[in-house]
Amino acid sequence: MPRVQTPTLRDVADAASVHPATASRALNPATRGLVNADTARRVIKVAEALGYRPNPIARGLKTAKSGTVGLVIPDLTNPLFPPIVRGIEDVLEPAGYSGLIVNTDNDPNRERQQIESLRSRQVEGLIVATAMLDHPLLADLHREGVLMVMVNRRPEGIDIPSITPDDATGVELAVRHLAALGHRRIAHLAGPVSTSTGLMRARAFRSAVRDLGLDEDADLVETCDYWSEEAGAAGLRALLDRGTTFTAVVAGNDLIALGCYDVFAERGIHCPGDVSVVGFNDMPFLDKLQPPLTTVSVPHQQIGAEAARLLLDAIADPNRPPRSVLLPLSLVVRASTAAP
Amino acid sequence: MPRVQTPTLRDVADAASVHPATASRALNPATRGLVNADTARRVIKVAEALGYRPNPIARGLKTAKSGTVGLVIPDLTNPLFPPIVRGIEDVLEPAGYSGLIVNTDNDPNRERQQIESLRSRQVEGLIVATAMLDHPLLADLHREGVLMVMVNRRPEGIDIPSITPDDATGVELAVRHLAALGHRRIAHLAGPVSTSTGLMRARAFRSAVRDLGLDEDADLVETCDYWSEEAGAAGLRALLDRGTTFTAVVAGNDLIALGCYDVFAERGIHCPGDVSVVGFNDMPFLDKLQPPLTTVSVPHQQIGAEAARLLLDAIADPNRPPRSVLLPLSLVVRASTAAP
Repeated sequence: MPRVQTPTLRDVADAASVHPATASRALNPATRGLVNADTARRVIKVAEALGYRPNPIARGLKTAKSGTVGLVIPDLTNPLFPPIVRGIEDVLEPAGYSGLIVNTDNDPNRERQQIESLRSRQVEGLIVATAMLDHPLLADLHREGVLMVMVNRRPEGIDIPSITPDDATGVELAVRHLAALGHRRIAHLAGPVSTSTGLMRARAFRSAVRDLGLDEDADLVETCDYWSEEAGAAGLRALLDRGTTFTAVVAGNDLIALGCYDVFAERGIHCPGDVSVVGFNDMPFLDKLQPPLTTVSVPHQQIGAEAARLLLDAIADPNRPPRSVLLPLSLVVRASTAAP
Repeated sequence: MPRVQTPTLRDVADAASVHPATASRALNPATRGLVNADTARRVIKVAEALGYRPNPIARGLKTAKSGTVGLVIPDLTNPLFPPIVRGIEDVLEPAGYSGLIVNTDNDPNRERQQIESLRSRQVEGLIVATAMLDHPLLADLHREGVLMVMVNRRPEGIDIPSITPDDATGVELAVRHLAALGHRRIAHLAGPVSTSTGLMRARAFRSAVRDLGLDEDADLVETCDYWSEEAGAAGLRALLDRGTTFTAVVAGNDLIALGCYDVFAERGIHCPGDVSVVGFNDMPFLDKLQPPLTTVSVPHQQIGAEAARLLLDAIADPNRPPRSVLLPLSLVVRASTAAP
């Protein structure tokens, strides 16, 4: 943008009859609390009247604070991520921070490049939503002192703050609901083994089945190659084609459950009459499906907000021991589940 | 992030046996084309080997280029916007730019504040997705020389590049499809009159009805207060309650069409047996509705990509006359439309 003649910080300080350092503190949301509230209000009012605009880039050079945070997500068009990003922005904004988003498509090279680019922009920290299990880059970054918060998974072996949904309890809620309806042979269409959520949900499924005394049969678990509708359909076809009998499916996520709906239509299977299905995530508009999908609800916006809070805490005090927050989940019972 | 001892640009230039200015050009994606390709490759390789990381903030102060662009959208959790933002990022990234997203919730005060915050971060331009008809802020910004591209609407009376879907043709496709099925009394649940898309689609609906010689009846048009499922349901209830007869509905967008589905369930109306419905946007998963929704498909990711291209063009040459790009739309016929 073209530079226009703008008043300086000194002009604001003079007009408000305060020291420039006080004016600077009053105008920076991160330091405003250090100034008397009436003084801060007066400085802000004067700054607005004069049309003063602070220059965070110059401030960035002086204080190594850019006021930006990097948001590293696989793909914004995956319906999981917009509410997470919205939750993050809602917390960053009043704190005077902005988020720079990058999409990695779960491609390690792209991710490395994108994170380098964010670092070169002097972001003060990263919020990383990755589901990949094997993630040497994060360990490297952590070693280099990069402030990070992990979303949706807890990193193994690295001490990074994280905010994750309580997947194990979510899966248990789903299995318990089906068991209460009378199902004994419940199948699981698991997410990819390369993802921590895929592994964790499959593990939780097996323990829930065992704890509730349901039929334990390795044939009842099929692992999908992706978290997608197509992979879910392929998984259910594989289950059916090998002749495994079951009356209910716990899908690794909602997209996999949508794939089940496709196979039901394909093969004339009635849901929930022949087979019940439970999803995971509660993406938008699942109540409009036929039948409306019973699913585990994950508070994505809250996850994003909490992640931003953890990162702002880490920025304010980098020596604070990392916290891991586990968010409780709930089951939304709709019409895709019924007695067998 | 803590500062680590990193090699300087001069170190890279020395190791690659080039002038520092050449090294700088080679390492900046925006100027790389000015350097011999082999030289650029050598410099990049050396920079990687040394672990050199350019400092765009310092570069920003010198050249008034921050490498960032502001993305002003109403709400990222509206399913329209994630693919637009993804399309924008896909074009910005290889050009060495990043996007700073802000959500305005269509609140003029919030928007003003957010845009001020973006400007204070020295963004080089703005991509603004707003549907509000009355938008004095944009005229102000344009007068101040802020580079902008509008998404989804053409600004009236301001010369700003814009990228919009060809709404009029989209509505005409919908009405033509229904007329071909034999419908003569077609209702329109219009979007809010405060939005340019709401007004433009309603205008297009009236001309299509006139052009095709269908029943013109002011009672057949009901304006919804919001672009939402609830407002769509309220609109359809109002139409039904005043005894207007019709066999088909052109909904202002998909969410309004979803509201129609709710009222159909409420009042035992069969779709498409009793009433056909067409939506607008083709949000994800409409094929999973019962019945799957016939709708006008808008290429949102392409809109985002094109908007980013327009803005990068404007940044490269601010004196270039603004272009307005109108993207063609298509109708996706599913099962919510049938002969009356």
